[in-house]
Amino acid sequence: MTNEIERFPVLRVTEEGISDIEEMTAREFPLTITLDNQELVTLLCSPTNLKYLAIGFLFSEGLLKSKEEIKKIIADEGKGVVWVETKEDKGVDRELVFKRFITSGCGRGASFYSAADAQSQAKIESQIKISPEEVFALVKEFQHRSQVYKATHGVHSAALCDTKSILFFSDDIGRHNAIDKIFGECILNDIPTEERIIITSGRISSEMLLKVAKRSIPIIISIAAPTNLGVRLAADLGITLIGSVRGRKMNVYSNDWRIRG
Amino acid sequence: MTNEIERFPVLRVTEEGISDIEEMTAREFPLTITLDNQELVTLLCSPTNLKYLAIGFLFSEGLLKSKEEIKKIIADEGKGVVWVETKEDKGVDRELVFKRFITSGCGRGASFYSAADAQSQAKIESQIKISPEEVFALVKEFQHRSQVYKATHGVHSAALCDTKSILFFSDDIGRHNAIDKIFGECILNDIPTEERIIITSGRISSEMLLKVAKRSIPIIISIAAPTNLGVRLAADLGITLIGSVRGRKMNVYSNDWRIRG
Repeated sequence: MTNEIERFPVLRVTEEGISDIEEMTAREFPLTITLDNQELVTLLCSPTNLKYLAIGFLFSEGLLKSKEEIKKIIADEGKGVVWVETKEDKGVDRELVFKRFITSGCGRGASFYSAADAQSQAKIESQIKISPEEVFALVKEFQHRSQVYKATHGVHSAALCDTKSILFFSDDIGRHNAIDKIFGECILNDIPTEERIIITSGRISSEMLLKVAKRSIPIIISIAAPTNLGVRLAADLGITLIGSVRGRKMNVYSNDWRIRG
Repeated sequence: MTNEIERFPVLRVTEEGISDIEEMTAREFPLTITLDNQELVTLLCSPTNLKYLAIGFLFSEGLLKSKEEIKKIIADEGKGVVWVETKEDKGVDRELVFKRFITSGCGRGASFYSAADAQSQAKIESQIKISPEEVFALVKEFQHRSQVYKATHGVHSAALCDTKSILFFSDDIGRHNAIDKIFGECILNDIPTEERIIITSGRISSEMLLKVAKRSIPIIISIAAPTNLGVRLAADLGITLIGSVRGRKMNVYSNDWRIRG
């Protein structure tokens, strides 16, 4: 965790008075991702699991489709670069890549892009079900899990679960990055996501929903609220969207037939 | 507000049982910004104040420097486009623009970019001061202000203030957009920001800090926590960064000489 935080002297002001304390903040780390010698993007992220983040990002953006395409991955934390080489040089059209990235990101996205992606996205057919008790138990575990959040209140978290427990957990200053890190890990280690559940601390926008749909995940749970396009896409793509989970209350926005009992 | 929300039927699950209710969600709206006939970017935003958002964005990204450069602004909400024309066709280098945008956005930014911008950013010398009482009063007003947040829990808010009251208020599904809308309004209406205060509901990252520094704002207040680069830049650029304001508690991360009493 030491790598992910930085301490600062802070003036703490409360009703009891003013004191000099030390506070921990989440570190921002610039990571440049290079695909077949083409510099694609620089993400601001938390400095962990850089390889997973790069691979998750490339899959989420549709620039890689299968693990078999990957020839080599080199991560250099000192330089803040991950180089990914594919077997056949992708020779990605620079303009096209830019076009995609511009329309991507948190609150900086586009549903032109989303709409196109959504149309090519197969409907998710998984018959998995989950009970409210299971949702509440998973979310409780999720909310107590992040040491970095407890220290800094400056990161988002994401988790891949089955109905009983958290399988993979990640945090990052970006809510998209936190999920991409989990997906990158699953892709590189051949871990299936089809019958699994994603939990996120962040709001569920159209981009978030599409990212999860690409990994064929049938249930997405958020502590926060969804946007209207998040709900519409979840409904259309056969995904059960559970939002605004607080204590023992939750909203099911779409495909509620997956709620058991 | 009706324009900014969409209602959905929702299955509400609590300890008391299951009920069919209706919930409001924040609308995502794709806005394309065109500068001198060049399509620059599509932002996902809340569908209000599109002109202000476009202008705030272009200034935040450094593509416009003064209001006098602007010849014409046409906003077409139906098409989701704002066209901005300048007196001298900017002929912005497409590659350069892309390079900037790629490294921008929420949790998708870069401190290469930030570092370059920070170096060219003049230190803020304003001698304005604020008392803890004034901070607590402003934040209290701020937190009760957003009708859309109360309805949806799906938007960020931003406000421009003096030490006594909120002057301009904005919400948007993106924390960057909420601030850009305020800055756009100030720029188009010749409202100075130099001796003013920004409040945001979002975390303060390096990009957020730089956006505020560009408008020469001496004090930034956040309900949420800053990142390490947010704190470092605020310290370097002479900005007083107040974060984690909850009830009657706050942290002053930098330039605490502006705290009175």
